[in-house]
Amino acid sequence: MRKFERQLITEWRRLEMPFADRTIIIAVSGGADSISLLLAFDELKNQNKLNLRIVAAHFNHHLRGKESDEDESFIRGIVAARKIELATGHSNLSPQANIEQNARIERYDFLQQTATNIQAHAVLTAHTVDDQAETFLLNLIRGSGAQGLSSMRPIRKLGNAEPPISLVRPFLGWARRAETEVYCREFSIDYRSDTMNDDESFTRVRIRKILIPLLKDFNPNIVERLADTARLLQAELPAARESTGEPLDVSHLGSLNETELKQLLRAWISANRGHLRQIELKHIEAIERLIKSRKSGKTIELPGGQVVTKEAGRLVFGKNMVEKRGPDN
Amino acid sequence: MRKFERQLITEWRRLEMPFADRTIIIAVSGGADSISLLLAFDELKNQNKLNLRIVAAHFNHHLRGKESDEDESFIRGIVAARKIELATGHSNLSPQANIEQNARIERYDFLQQTATNIQAHAVLTAHTVDDQAETFLLNLIRGSGAQGLSSMRPIRKLGNAEPPISLVRPFLGWARRAETEVYCREFSIDYRSDTMNDDESFTRVRIRKILIPLLKDFNPNIVERLADTARLLQAELPAARESTGEPLDVSHLGSLNETELKQLLRAWISANRGHLRQIELKHIEAIERLIKSRKSGKTIELPGGQVVTKEAGRLVFGKNMVEKRGPDN
Repeated sequence: MRKFERQLITEWRRLEMPFADRTIIIAVSGGADSISLLLAFDELKNQNKLNLRIVAAHFNHHLRGKESDEDESFIRGIVAARKIELATGHSNLSPQANIEQNARIERYDFLQQTATNIQAHAVLTAHTVDDQAETFLLNLIRGSGAQGLSSMRPIRKLGNAEPPISLVRPFLGWARRAETEVYCREFSIDYRSDTMNDDESFTRVRIRKILIPLLKDFNPNIVERLADTARLLQAELPAARESTGEPLDVSHLGSLNETELKQLLRAWISANRGHLRQIELKHIEAIERLIKSRKSGKTIELPGGQVVTKEAGRLVFGKNMVEKRGPDN
Repeated sequence: MRKFERQLITEWRRLEMPFADRTIIIAVSGGADSISLLLAFDELKNQNKLNLRIVAAHFNHHLRGKESDEDESFIRGIVAARKIELATGHSNLSPQANIEQNARIERYDFLQQTATNIQAHAVLTAHTVDDQAETFLLNLIRGSGAQGLSSMRPIRKLGNAEPPISLVRPFLGWARRAETEVYCREFSIDYRSDTMNDDESFTRVRIRKILIPLLKDFNPNIVERLADTARLLQAELPAARESTGEPLDVSHLGSLNETELKQLLRAWISANRGHLRQIELKHIEAIERLIKSRKSGKTIELPGGQVVTKEAGRLVFGKNMVEKRGPDN
């Protein structure tokens, strides 16, 4: 067993995740992070350290033309060679509407639906310590408050399916991006690099390429320190809301036409709620009015006791009875 | 009443501070921030908005030779012209031992002693929104955790005197550094600028001159956002410990000789505890051993129920019975 695999399985145990008799989905983009996650789980399975059904899932956003299809082919090649099951999904939005956040909503809806369809226990994403540090800084710069600074949690509920589906990030607590690249190279696998990474107009990329290198002049271990800080905040700030999804930043919806906006809202509700049962046009339209409203704090009730609230320019999905947990829960 | 003065008195009311029959000490370095605080309080008193006894307090660290004495003369000139009372103190440490942290400990001990001597209700310092943002970033870079990120609170207890003395920061919630400069210029007062500000080897100054300007490219309002974040964290994280002082970073004590180290520890205890009664050589020596010890979490008990603990390379002053407060207190 390689060190990388040992670290992964140690974290898997620490997260109290199952070792057998379950299905897990590994979300794969084609980058070194998600490819290394898939390879390492497949290796652990081949070494009989785990006895889980592993399904790779890839969502093709069709955002970068030929390259998007090459990503998909690349992944098809890997899973075919290793006999790993694959689920694929394709974007319904026009490329110009498919900016970062909207793309993420579509992708999470796909992952959630796939998990429901195959009765998966968990969906795994390959967010690393570096991603956590970047998320922390992104939220800090946006001024998103204490909950925002607590950044990504290693496990959260995905949607509201029964039995519940977990979104798990087994790299978040220990793996650096560079380690995932080294691991891929051990298998001579020439992972894909997202060309978005080279466009400095994206804040996250500017954080990665400009801000973090400057912060390293102050503290060479800044990436680990920021990730530690997020973890400490998570321990001190129990999730105030049973968050089952990401908030929806409404300032990013301007590029959508009527149909696309409705489609995106359905995907967002589905990703947060687990399904669209009992959701009618009137609910979607009420949310559209909420988006256009200037007031903060207004609430739309959905069938099943969920609510959608607008807070500081974002739609937030929650339960109707928000129980504030005590500090020790 | 000028806008600056109106903002100051509004904050003073918000902090529920007294308007009459008390003595307050204003700590004055000679910079625009502390001079503007002194001038504005004196103006408010002259306009009969406040009826407080105001005492300026200046501590001469003798760190910058002739300039340090010029700072003192400059302050003497202002208080003489305005008939403001002045208390001055002088450093006992050798200049080479008097690095930033040690200087601060000596200064706070002086302020604490002066407040006790003249039965002052509060000691005011002129920390601005900019100082708060810098403190936030400094603690973030150091990896000092959630409490560290909550940065400076607008009011805290200074020492353990009875009746209690408050350390109050009336600028922290609203005043920008540039506003304090504008206010001084209204009185044609050519405030002193600390030459330390021009030495980029100090982390805080590098934060001010390099990191914050870069962060402004990401968010032009970053200084306010960081200060907001600190305030939100304070609201979410009630002080776990009844902190009455600053922790002491032991890595900064190497430049001190035996006598100076004992002197500094006495000053630190005095600043945190309010007095040195019942403190014997054995207590000082126990803390010296604690500093040299490699273990974290060890505790030295002091007469009166206080404890000194070493945590992550810092001495922390606390009460023996640490009561964790609930989330709503």
